[in-house]
Amino acid sequence: MQENTNPSNLMVSREYKPKDTVITIGEGTSAVKVGGDNFFIIAGPCTVESPEMVCRIAEAVKHAGATILRGGAFKPRTSPYSFQGNEAEGLKWLAEAKKRTGLPVVSEITSISQLHLFNEIDILQVGSRNMQNYELLKALGKIDKPVLLKRGVSASLTDFLLSAEYIVSGGNPNVILCERGIRTFERETRNTPDIAAIPLLRQMTHLPVISDPSHSTGLSELVSPLALAATAAGAEGIMIEVHDNPKAALCDGRQSITPPEFELLIGKIRKIAETVK
Amino acid sequence: MQENTNPSNLMVSREYKPKDTVITIGEGTSAVKVGGDNFFIIAGPCTVESPEMVCRIAEAVKHAGATILRGGAFKPRTSPYSFQGNEAEGLKWLAEAKKRTGLPVVSEITSISQLHLFNEIDILQVGSRNMQNYELLKALGKIDKPVLLKRGVSASLTDFLLSAEYIVSGGNPNVILCERGIRTFERETRNTPDIAAIPLLRQMTHLPVISDPSHSTGLSELVSPLALAATAAGAEGIMIEVHDNPKAALCDGRQSITPPEFELLIGKIRKIAETVK
Amino acid sequence: MQENTNPSNLMVSREYKPKDTVITIGEGTSAVKVGGDNFFIIAGPCTVESPEMVCRIAEAVKHAGATILRGGAFKPRTSPYSFQGNEAEGLKWLAEAKKRTGLPVVSEITSISQLHLFNEIDILQVGSRNMQNYELLKALGKIDKPVLLKRGVSASLTDFLLSAEYIVSGGNPNVILCERGIRTFERETRNTPDIAAIPLLRQMTHLPVISDPSHSTGLSELVSPLALAATAAGAEGIMIEVHDNPKAALCDGRQSITPPEFELLIGKIRKIAETVK
Amino acid sequence: MQENTNPSNLMVSREYKPKDTVITIGEGTSAVKVGGDNFFIIAGPCTVESPEMVCRIAEAVKHAGATILRGGAFKPRTSPYSFQGNEAEGLKWLAEAKKRTGLPVVSEITSISQLHLFNEIDILQVGSRNMQNYELLKALGKIDKPVLLKRGVSASLTDFLLSAEYIVSGGNPNVILCERGIRTFERETRNTPDIAAIPLLRQMTHLPVISDPSHSTGLSELVSPLALAATAAGAEGIMIEVHDNPKAALCDGRQSITPPEFELLIGKIRKIAETVK
Repeated sequence: MQENTNPSNLMVSREYKPKDTVITIGEGTSAVKVGGDNFFIIAGPCTVESPEMVCRIAEAVKHAGATILRGGAFKPRTSPYSFQGNEAEGLKWLAEAKKRTGLPVVSEITSISQLHLFNEIDILQVGSRNMQNYELLKALGKIDKPVLLKRGVSASLTDFLLSAEYIVSGGNPNVILCERGIRTFERETRNTPDIAAIPLLRQMTHLPVISDPSHSTGLSELVSPLALAATAAGAEGIMIEVHDNPKAALCDGRQSITPPEFELLIGKIRKIAETVK
Repeated sequence: MQENTNPSNLMVSREYKPKDTVITIGEGTSAVKVGGDNFFIIAGPCTVESPEMVCRIAEAVKHAGATILRGGAFKPRTSPYSFQGNEAEGLKWLAEAKKRTGLPVVSEITSISQLHLFNEIDILQVGSRNMQNYELLKALGKIDKPVLLKRGVSASLTDFLLSAEYIVSGGNPNVILCERGIRTFERETRNTPDIAAIPLLRQMTHLPVISDPSHSTGLSELVSPLALAATAAGAEGIMIEVHDNPKAALCDGRQSITPPEFELLIGKIRKIAETVK
Repeated sequence: MQENTNPSNLMVSREYKPKDTVITIGEGTSAVKVGGDNFFIIAGPCTVESPEMVCRIAEAVKHAGATILRGGAFKPRTSPYSFQGNEAEGLKWLAEAKKRTGLPVVSEITSISQLHLFNEIDILQVGSRNMQNYELLKALGKIDKPVLLKRGVSASLTDFLLSAEYIVSGGNPNVILCERGIRTFERETRNTPDIAAIPLLRQMTHLPVISDPSHSTGLSELVSPLALAATAAGAEGIMIEVHDNPKAALCDGRQSITPPEFELLIGKIRKIAETVK
Repeated sequence: MQENTNPSNLMVSREYKPKDTVITIGEGTSAVKVGGDNFFIIAGPCTVESPEMVCRIAEAVKHAGATILRGGAFKPRTSPYSFQGNEAEGLKWLAEAKKRTGLPVVSEITSISQLHLFNEIDILQVGSRNMQNYELLKALGKIDKPVLLKRGVSASLTDFLLSAEYIVSGGNPNVILCERGIRTFERETRNTPDIAAIPLLRQMTHLPVISDPSHSTGLSELVSPLALAATAAGAEGIMIEVHDNPKAALCDGRQSITPPEFELLIGKIRKIAETVK
């Protein structure tokens, strides 16, 4: 029995729902709408290193114009000997930064058994390595928090949409799709940002589509041109790693930009988003 | 902080342990040694469909010369609407087939919460989509059953060895590595079997290295030439899908061979294994 | 003897010449400068079909703001049974369109034996399939016309720069590099546009870097978002296929846009080029 | 107008001619039949370095059991600064080695303008970089010498067959197809040998299909396992680089094996060829 994987038969397809999905993140006065015309910028450190560091960067990115704070506490690392994140404690620091700045927060979950630790976290991120961890996706289909799903490095767009369908068909309609590069023969960058995926996904699905230029290439000097390119290609949001001392970062500093660079970039992103609207 | 991912520093490396790892599967008189000179053949249906079907195929593959029985009960499928396997019940059928034939059994686990259902299963398989599901790997590092780890379709050999290292460094030394094809531009086959990975892995690691020619290509007519090729390239074992009515298979029938084809193939595999020893 | 392929040792590298190369195309009053701050737009049909068609489209793209006319006369086709172009005659039609509109002209050369036919052609294009046809590159190093070199679909950036080096080290400094997509596992588009290549090439080389969004994907609806993305990423020019009746095109109509679509697009391209300058 | 590229409509297809093509190489008593059941082994240095060296290696590989001698005189190199071969003189050395050993000779041609230099060469090789140099292929379709066509590193099997069709439809039926690896994300080897291509090509075409394990990986320690694997997968011949002092080789020494290693390998190849016949 072959799998029927026609993406236009899915609940996530434009055929099923022509209008852009708009998701409300957070509550009360600090709630943020994302999707459709609500262009949004997620920023923050790759990994949360200390309570002070998270708050400092949260305030810097908020000041520069970010609308959502990101920060990793559970870090899926290729090597078991790499730093695995500050885990439960890290999530508390994020909650504290959220309270101080009012920014909603996104952080990665790597096992459903961690769910009780994510009470204060507004968006649950599923990383590219877990894009086809279907047991996790099924469990996330049963909760009522938005999920930010990253594309696997070798996932076709259909595979990607089918993974989102696991969540949506399970009962959770609030999924944000994040393009973050694919694995190709090209060796200059860690991954090859798949810019065509952005307009293609916009055609295929009503879910919000964003781009993560930091992880696609792993090179900070490419973050600005690629963030601008993704915006020009029609992304509905951008997620960027910001660190105030990239060289000392515990993880992926090589791809982080500083708050002043981030502020400069946001100005251009907003102009381009306006031009292509 | 960049990850240190030099594969020669790992517990799974030849540098750490020059001699081939030999693993004993099962117990008592039906125990089977795998690894090193103990060439072994795993065979069985992609998915277990009924108690009768499992027993029938188990007996056929045993008669043809297989040393271990395979069968999927928890099936990670790209689409949420595809058949997801017979789950707990399927594992019972496998246990029954094991009792009847004496063949040790391998089946895929997709979440550590299923572990209690795998008591009668001798080898826990981690599928390619979960190769970087590190929470699952960490949990498998703490149990005392052998793990058959399949390579992810876009995993480099170093990524693959680092995933095995998660299990071995956790305390479980019994990992079998299974090459099953990578994702490339080539569209004639579902995946591109990476034949060079076999001799390379044999150099890099002491763990047993096997090949799954059924999943690499998804085409039954390629199973025989690719099984022979993998044996000639130095694989220590082969895993093959066998179904007695491929057209009616619930899953992946297109890549299954029949018991008579399997028996013919085993004869040639054994000859080639002897030639390249 | 391994090849020494360090790209920073080349004549085409930024290390060798930090300043952007600016090339003058054509002569007299219709001369056009390209490279550096001289953003330029090449447009025209994939293949020249008749004298009237070429002139009609040439006038349309000139009116819309194109600065250089493109048109294929010698067409390298994957199948020997596909239309191979109007060859010598097609080049005459291009020369006629040039005389009428004053636009400099670029057309593809597939063998150095055709050179005498290209007298009126201002830029010689080398297609992606010939990017490593070194005998052709060596011959083009000895002439005094600019060369537009397209990246091969599996060429690394270093391979690409080394091919340009064949021309430049031979004595012809006027090479324009054109990114047009690479071959990856992704099957939604014909090729995967490699957007990161644009800022990377801008860092690595002083030669002008342009993008061809029409060939990268083979889908007309992606031409606009990808042209805008390439401009945002720092391309110094864009090459676009325009046809006034795409459905009747003799070649690659599926990826052509119409003159009105092209005019609309140029307005946005110019705005974004201004934003990222 | 889309290209019609259905491979089963071609003159090179099994549908057009079900029986294996058998080609006679060379003349008189030293003529060699290749294709079908006539398993053949091509061996020799990557590049011809001196008259003595060619003769020495020619005698060694003949003694070991090779049936055809290979040697590069025109070398397409990625960098213009790499050694480009001994060209016309190198071809004379090959002719001399042929006279001494009686072995037919294959050497690479990179431009049709070199044809007059290849009088004594029995098989003209087209390298992977020129697989889509259609002007060269068209010219080779008009001569009466066998052509050994190497697959491009990003060519699909259909692209490959269409390139062969350029030669065959031009009037030259004697084409040998050589699989030599494709470009993928995998970085442990220079290219990824595409082992599945061998049985697939055997199904799709009647032309002889051989494998070049030396170029696929660029690593001499992989040559033996991959040559055995290709034979087991159904290759009709194998092409291997042999050098009696690999460390001093002018080109690609890293992938060459020595005459004693070659002799040992041939014994195993012949046994496996017999097993899978």
